Amino acid sequence: MANRTGGDRNYDCPVRDILDRIGDAWSVLVILELARGPCRFNALCRVIDGISQRMLAVTLRRLERDGFVSRNVLPVAPPQVEYALTDLGWSLKSQLSGLYEWADNHQPAIRQARERYDDLADA
Amino acid sequence: MANRTGGDRNYDCPVRDILDRIGDAWSVLVILELARGPCRFNALCRVIDGISQRMLAVTLRRLERDGFVSRNVLPVAPPQVEYALTDLGWSLKSQLSGLYEWADNHQPAIRQARERYDDLADA
Repeated sequence: MANRTGGDRNYDCPVRDILDRIGDAWSVLVILELARGPCRFNALCRVIDGISQRMLAVTLRRLERDGFVSRNVLPVAPPQVEYALTDLGWSLKSQLSGLYEWADNHQPAIRQARERYDDLADA
Repeated sequence: MANRTGGDRNYDCPVRDILDRIGDAWSVLVILELARGPCRFNALCRVIDGISQRMLAVTLRRLERDGFVSRNVLPVAPPQVEYALTDLGWSLKSQLSGLYEWADNHQPAIRQARERYDDLADA
C-alpha cells in the first residue's frame, strides 16, 4: 500500500476544469466531426447522431470560447456560417483520437466487466 | 466546406457511453492517484482535493464496475480495503496521462482564448 500523507498533491483546478470540458461527450463528437473538415451548423446537427439543436449550439459556443473552434462567416449572399477547428482544436483532436480509438478497442472488455459486476451485485 | 450527407456516420453509442464515463473529471483524478499505488478510501479522499466521501464512493463503484479498479480486502484484523488499478485501468491511465499533460501544457492558451471571447461578448 502506498504511503500517502494528506495534501501532498493538490490537483490543479484549471486542469480539472479543462478535463471537465473536454470530457463532455458532445464536445468530443463535434471536434471529431470538424476534423473531417469545416462544417455548417445544420450539417453538424444531421451527422451527429442524437444531438439537439440547442445542445449543439451550446457545445459550439463553449468550444469557440475555449479556442478550439472558429466561427467563420462566409462572404456569400445570404451569409453562411461555418465552423472549423483552430490550431488548438487540432492539437486537442489528436489527443482525443487516441482516446476514442482506445475506447473503441476496449469496449468489449468494459462491457464484460460491467456484466460480471452486475451479476455479482444480483447474486 | 466538406460535403456531408445526412446519416453517413453514426457514432457508436457504446463508445460515447465510455467517453462519457471516463470524461468524468473525478474518475480521471482517482485513476491518476491510483497509478501512484494501491490506496485506501480515506487516503484517497484526503489527497483528492475537493472530492466528497459520497462522490468518491460513487466514482470508485463506477470504476470498479467498468473494470478499471479492483477492490481488495486485505487479510488483516480489522479488515482493510484497498483500491488498485487493474490491467484495463493501467491501459486507460496511459491514455489519460497524455490528455492530462496536454491540458496542463495548453492551459494558458485556453485561458487566453476564454478572455478574448468574453471581452468580445462584453464589447
